[in-house]
Parts: sequence; structure tokens; C-alpha cells
Amino acid sequence: MQMKNVLAQRSNPPPAVVDPPVKYGMILFQAFEPLDVFGPIQALYMLSRIRRLELALISETMDVVTTRPVVAAMNPMNSSVFPTIPPTHTLQTAPKDLDVLIIPGGLGTRSPLINATIEYVSQTYPKLEYLITVCTGSALAARAGLLDGRRATTNKASWSNTVIYGPKTKWIPHARWVVDGNIWTSSGISAGIDTTLAFIEKMYGKDNATYVANMMEYERHEDSSWDPFADIFKPNMTGVLTRR
Amino acid sequence: MQMKNVLAQRSNPPPAVVDPPVKYGMILFQAFEPLDVFGPIQALYMLSRIRRLELALISETMDVVTTRPVVAAMNPMNSSVFPTIPPTHTLQTAPKDLDVLIIPGGLGTRSPLINATIEYVSQTYPKLEYLITVCTGSALAARAGLLDGRRATTNKASWSNTVIYGPKTKWIPHARWVVDGNIWTSSGISAGIDTTLAFIEKMYGKDNATYVANMMEYERHEDSSWDPFADIFKPNMTGVLTRR
Repeated sequence: MQMKNVLAQRSNPPPAVVDPPVKYGMILFQAFEPLDVFGPIQALYMLSRIRRLELALISETMDVVTTRPVVAAMNPMNSSVFPTIPPTHTLQTAPKDLDVLIIPGGLGTRSPLINATIEYVSQTYPKLEYLITVCTGSALAARAGLLDGRRATTNKASWSNTVIYGPKTKWIPHARWVVDGNIWTSSGISAGIDTTLAFIEKMYGKDNATYVANMMEYERHEDSSWDPFADIFKPNMTGVLTRR
Repeated sequence: MQMKNVLAQRSNPPPAVVDPPVKYGMILFQAFEPLDVFGPIQALYMLSRIRRLELALISETMDVVTTRPVVAAMNPMNSSVFPTIPPTHTLQTAPKDLDVLIIPGGLGTRSPLINATIEYVSQTYPKLEYLITVCTGSALAARAGLLDGRRATTNKASWSNTVIYGPKTKWIPHARWVVDGNIWTSSGISAGIDTTLAFIEKMYGKDNATYVANMMEYERHEDSSWDPFADIFKPNMTGVLTRR
């Protein structure tokens, strides 16, 4: 009833762009960062109550995909906080007409074992309307050659481990997110929520973005240059930038 | 390497409390809200790199648990943004010595079909050190009788649909989260991240909470009374409060 009231109060404005995206894909691989996937998904989940949206979860096989690091040494405390998620499609069965592909980050983006995924991203990009990367997902996009000559950003704590994959990329060290053409790259983890909300605003209008953020009880950062974490992690980032 | 640097810089202070929690459980049920689960999990996932933590994902059966609404009418746009998650334990096989149980929100908290889960929560609570609810997860805790005579909060957009389950609860309408004894209740969706970070600060110390928030590139709300969403959704909330 509450939901009905909230929906009824909305003026249902026209979308911000003609024919905004409907079909989303999310890439999954071992050792993805949980919130990189579920931050954007939560925003789309909320938006999907008032606009028709489809989401495909795409992985190399139909096996459940784990957040567990590929290498045991990356779990030094022998913890077991490793949720898994089943994909809905493989690289082969994924919809051929995706409008938007989202690439999350996580330790898995640096894995030598995801060449098929990199190839898929490379071959799929020309057919997309938009590509969005979250966190170190930009490393995967860079490995697919999609960030050559582009402005992009990434996770600030993992800056040096990520920018090395994009020697021809103009990495922006102080940004919550960066838009270059039809590629949106976001900073680390939570930044994916702000990037998705900014994308929703651009595609479906400000009212819809505000609706989604309020329903998520999320205080948006609407300024893409807001980035206190660039300062917090600057000592490491600066060293790397100086070397390049 | 970057990670190693960040870890090396930490002073590794002693935990804030003696013998802080290790074993966490997360309740899952159909139509859970994605970020209610994965916001807290992301914080624990990050903390689990520097402290040993265990997480059990607990459901009535071992079937994958979907975010899809139980009733098709709750998906009016016929969207398909419905990720699923496999549990790791059933109510019967869940660890008997959990330290903390987390209950997410979502439309499923109001389902008449989750009586076994409510019974589990009711019987498990006396053995727990702490109970945390996110969003409308407080409705489930109220249905289990755990919020009688307690101060608690919940999602502001779904306020009226939730408080009705806790007629003996002192509902706090303006709060990011509320602590009463060993029960922490949080406001809607994203508030679960702030609540988990506040819980981490209380249990493992401020340095660890800051580390987790920074690594998540998440700007914490550290004031439990911060709640702009109570004002945004106040017209609906006020009506309900007046009736009670």
C-alpha cells in the first residue's frame, strides 16, 4: 500500500533519452567484489519496478560463481565470507542484443584464467549502447583493449595494480566516475552505486534517479569529481603515477 | 602488493571488545532486498581479510533463493532483474553457535509462507550475542516477538507496512539505526551498510571500521540520528503514527 502511494505520487515523466536501455548484462567471474555487482543491481532492481528492465548474469559456465579468491594466499585469515551467485547465461547463450554491459571489479579481474571473458567483452562492446565498469572492472575492460586512448578511472586503493593494464589509457586519479563516449568507469566498490544512479539520471531522467536513490535510502554523490578516497590512498597512487 | 602496503601500514590495534564476534549468519528468503544482504556482506567480506570471520547463508531449504516477488503483481513492469543466491545452510543445518544473526528486508518479510524462518529466528535469538536487522527485516524480528518493548527502526518508505508487525515496539521514526540491548535495527536498504560499519566499530574498533569503509570507498554516516529519508517519506509515516 505504501509502495502504491509512493508510485501514485510520481508524475511519471518521460524518459531523458529516446528509447532508453532495457537489456542489461552483468559479467561474473571468480573473486568478483560483492558490492560491485549488487550495488548497481540494487539500483536497477528498484528502477525495474517502474520501468521494464531485463538483467542477464553472464559467466563462462553455468556453475555458481564464487567471491572466493582464486589463490588461497589472498585469504590470509582463512575466513569464509564468500557468497556465490548462479549465472543466468554463459558467454555463448547471453542475449546478443544487450543495451548495457556492466563489468564489476574484484581480485578476479587480474586472473590469468579469464581470457574467454575478456574476448567476450572485446567482441560484445561494438554491439553495445553503453559499457559500465565498477572498481577494478576497468582492468578487465583495459585488458579487452576498450580503454585505449580513453579517459577512465578505477579503485583508488588498487590503483597501481589496475592502471598497469591500461598503458594507453588516460587514467583520471581523482574521480568518483568518468564518462568517455559510451564508456562509464567508476571508482572503487561503493562508487558503482553513484555511477549507476548518474547513468539512470542520464538515461531515464532525474526524477527516476531521485526515486531510486530515495527508495534505497542512499545519499547520492552527484558530483563525478567528488573523491576523498583519492586523497586517502594518494601516497600509493602518487608513487605509481610518478613511475609512469 | 597495494593491499599488502595498506595492511602493513595498519597498526593492528587490539579489538574494541574482548572476544569479538566470529560466526555470522544471514537469513535468506524469497524476495529479499539485494543490498540488504550484500551491503553488510561487503563490509564483512572486507573485514574478513584482516580478521577471521565465518558467514553462513541460512534458508528454509538448500534451493537457490530468489529476489523475485512472491506475487507477480509486485512486478508490474514484468521486469527480470531478479538475482538469486544459493544458501550454505538450512534452518536445521545452520551452525548452533552463531555469534551474530543478520535479517535482511524486502517484500518477503511480509510473506505468510516464512513461518519456519520466524520460528528459527525466535528460537535462535536467545543463543546469539547480537541480532542485526536491515530495512524491513525488523518486521521479521517483530513477527518473531523479539522487538516487544524494544526501541527499533525500519525502512521509511515502507514504514506503515512494517510497524504494524510490532504493536509493542517503540518505533523510532527518525534514525539511521537504533541499538537496544543486543539488537541493532537499521533503516532502509543502504542504511544496513552504516549499521554494519557502526557494529564493526563497536566490536573490532574504530580503526577497523575506517579501514573497511575506506577500502569500500564508502562515505559513512556515523551519526545514528542522521535520517533525511524520514523527512522525505514523512507524509506517509506521519499518517500512520497519528493512527497509532
